[in-house]
Amino acid sequence: MNVTIRGRPQHFRTVTFDRAHNSVRLIEQQLLPHEFKIVATKNFRETARAITDMIVRGAGAIGATAAYGLAQGALAFRGNNLKKFSAHVENVYRVLKNARPTAVDPVNAMYVVRRQMTRGKTVEEKQSLALAAAEEFASEDVRHCEEIGRHGAKLIRDGMKILTHCNAGWLAFVDVGTATAPMYAAQKLGKKFHVFCDETRPRSQGATLTAWELAQQKISHQIIADNAAGHLMQRGEIDLVIVGSDRTLGRTGEVTNKIGTYTKAVLAARHKIPFYVAIPLSTIDWKLKNGLEIPIEERSESEVLGAWGVDSRNKRKFIRVANPTSGACNPGFDVTPAELITGIITPRGIFKPKEFWRRRSELGFSD
Amino acid sequence: MNVTIRGRPQHFRTVTFDRAHNSVRLIEQQLLPHEFKIVATKNFRETARAITDMIVRGAGAIGATAAYGLAQGALAFRGNNLKKFSAHVENVYRVLKNARPTAVDPVNAMYVVRRQMTRGKTVEEKQSLALAAAEEFASEDVRHCEEIGRHGAKLIRDGMKILTHCNAGWLAFVDVGTATAPMYAAQKLGKKFHVFCDETRPRSQGATLTAWELAQQKISHQIIADNAAGHLMQRGEIDLVIVGSDRTLGRTGEVTNKIGTYTKAVLAARHKIPFYVAIPLSTIDWKLKNGLEIPIEERSESEVLGAWGVDSRNKRKFIRVANPTSGACNPGFDVTPAELITGIITPRGIFKPKEFWRRRSELGFSD
Repeated sequence: MNVTIRGRPQHFRTVTFDRAHNSVRLIEQQLLPHEFKIVATKNFRETARAITDMIVRGAGAIGATAAYGLAQGALAFRGNNLKKFSAHVENVYRVLKNARPTAVDPVNAMYVVRRQMTRGKTVEEKQSLALAAAEEFASEDVRHCEEIGRHGAKLIRDGMKILTHCNAGWLAFVDVGTATAPMYAAQKLGKKFHVFCDETRPRSQGATLTAWELAQQKISHQIIADNAAGHLMQRGEIDLVIVGSDRTLGRTGEVTNKIGTYTKAVLAARHKIPFYVAIPLSTIDWKLKNGLEIPIEERSESEVLGAWGVDSRNKRKFIRVANPTSGACNPGFDVTPAELITGIITPRGIFKPKEFWRRRSELGFSD
Repeated sequence: MNVTIRGRPQHFRTVTFDRAHNSVRLIEQQLLPHEFKIVATKNFRETARAITDMIVRGAGAIGATAAYGLAQGALAFRGNNLKKFSAHVENVYRVLKNARPTAVDPVNAMYVVRRQMTRGKTVEEKQSLALAAAEEFASEDVRHCEEIGRHGAKLIRDGMKILTHCNAGWLAFVDVGTATAPMYAAQKLGKKFHVFCDETRPRSQGATLTAWELAQQKISHQIIADNAAGHLMQRGEIDLVIVGSDRTLGRTGEVTNKIGTYTKAVLAARHKIPFYVAIPLSTIDWKLKNGLEIPIEERSESEVLGAWGVDSRNKRKFIRVANPTSGACNPGFDVTPAELITGIITPRGIFKPKEFWRRRSELGFSD
């Protein structure tokens, strides 16, 4: 999407590959929204570290980064000994996989790249195939998000007020995003609407990343405290909710997403406000049969006990907000049951969550 | 309640009067939880400023502060000219009333003090009566909170996990508090329980003040992001919710309280978790007929766009968290309908919200 730099809008993707320098180029998301900077990794180890350090975050974005990282590692190999090359690639894969051990996207993305590489006979062929596969993975991520936008834009009518939670925007993917895709598509169609961004404590991705995206895209929006959505719904100030998903259960239509999503779904149901979840196909889990069995990551207490931001001199700082002798409980995600979800916006159209399993072949599942 | 200073627990009230120095003594709540300090105001103007600057906040606490401030102003008068004294008191009243123009507690508290003063015939008599009335006002605030504790403690069973929102603790009153009163009373009865404190963005009173209170009182507790309560309820981790109230409609049982309260009530109802509101009688509004008519204060955007805390050298700092080119929408309160409230804990017992009007005489209302 566009980023305005010195008054001029320029197009960026969250993740790209610079072939001339064999480098993965990433938007430095830790500095946003206070500073916009592109990081170019020198080698696959730096790429892995960028994933670990959350310079890049978001399902699609870390998938593409790992795919490019694998290609970057493969391309760095000198010589034509296939056995040595194979061992080297295995090592690159392991380093990138361990960059965020619980994430599934890097593994899935690198699986695609490695499968393509098997078609090559020489080191050079395998290297070319790796990069082509990574590029295709990134392009498909963008196409899928655009499709989500095309389907989801139909839900947005002129004058609507839309609530979103956390960041399922283009920064979480290669471009366009999922929850934001319908907004960007509706804007292109000339529709006027207003977005409320939940701050999304404790990491504040709504106040930082989503708000920054919407501001760059010149979409009318306001940040609200996570506490405020219920009140706004009660006073008729919200017409539609669109959020993303980290894991969607194909068998039940349950959605795992950033902590607080479930609360918004409960509120939306009470107020009969349509609640939609926008997802790439890669987040569908066809195995699990009960969302309440999903183990919920318990994250660091310090996220709840304080906040990151910038001081009056625009210097990045962490402050402790909470009572210093108190601890915190910090579940990272929650599970929203299908009954609270009006529809799931996928690249293949909008599905009722309960139809997911019956229509699984349309969603690319093969028994 | 107790504050542990250099390892020794000492008893403090939020607001007291120092007759020898004609001074109102206040716990400096802006510095909590990072520093514990008592402020002694030199005159009624300083007392008014302490209310304006939120050195003291909370319904009961600012009521008592205004009552003491009026007595302080009256006591500072030199001479025995009743007419001049009367004009002086009128001025003191106006300054204290304007310290927080929308708050109703200072006005109600000062009404009580002024009514008592009419019984005096000389300046000296009126001065003594003013102070006695202010002391009685403060003592009654404490007695009411203790009564709330006595009734509410019955709701707390061993092993329970209790959720509270914002700070309706002893810092918001002269002592004991309202939402916290049942917890302190249950603790005295030897009951064991755990409290989850909602952070309560944007001003974080739960993470700062309530958590500090509970830590000082050695009550087991954890701070959670406002987003987390729904998830905890879904997993059976919350057995009881107790919150405070800024305004309770006597005719309908609706409760106005800090933004986010309504959301917790909706979640509790879905999970069939008892939801109680603890209130002093002074917050009952017998006039209004519809909670949705209550104008909701829209507060400063900066509260949502950033956070106050301390840096690594324990220096108080404001940081900007949010995207700098985004604005915020910041409603300060919300309204919870009676149907979502299991009971209202008052100094006169626990009432169903719908019984309020029928049993109004028990609650001190006279037609």
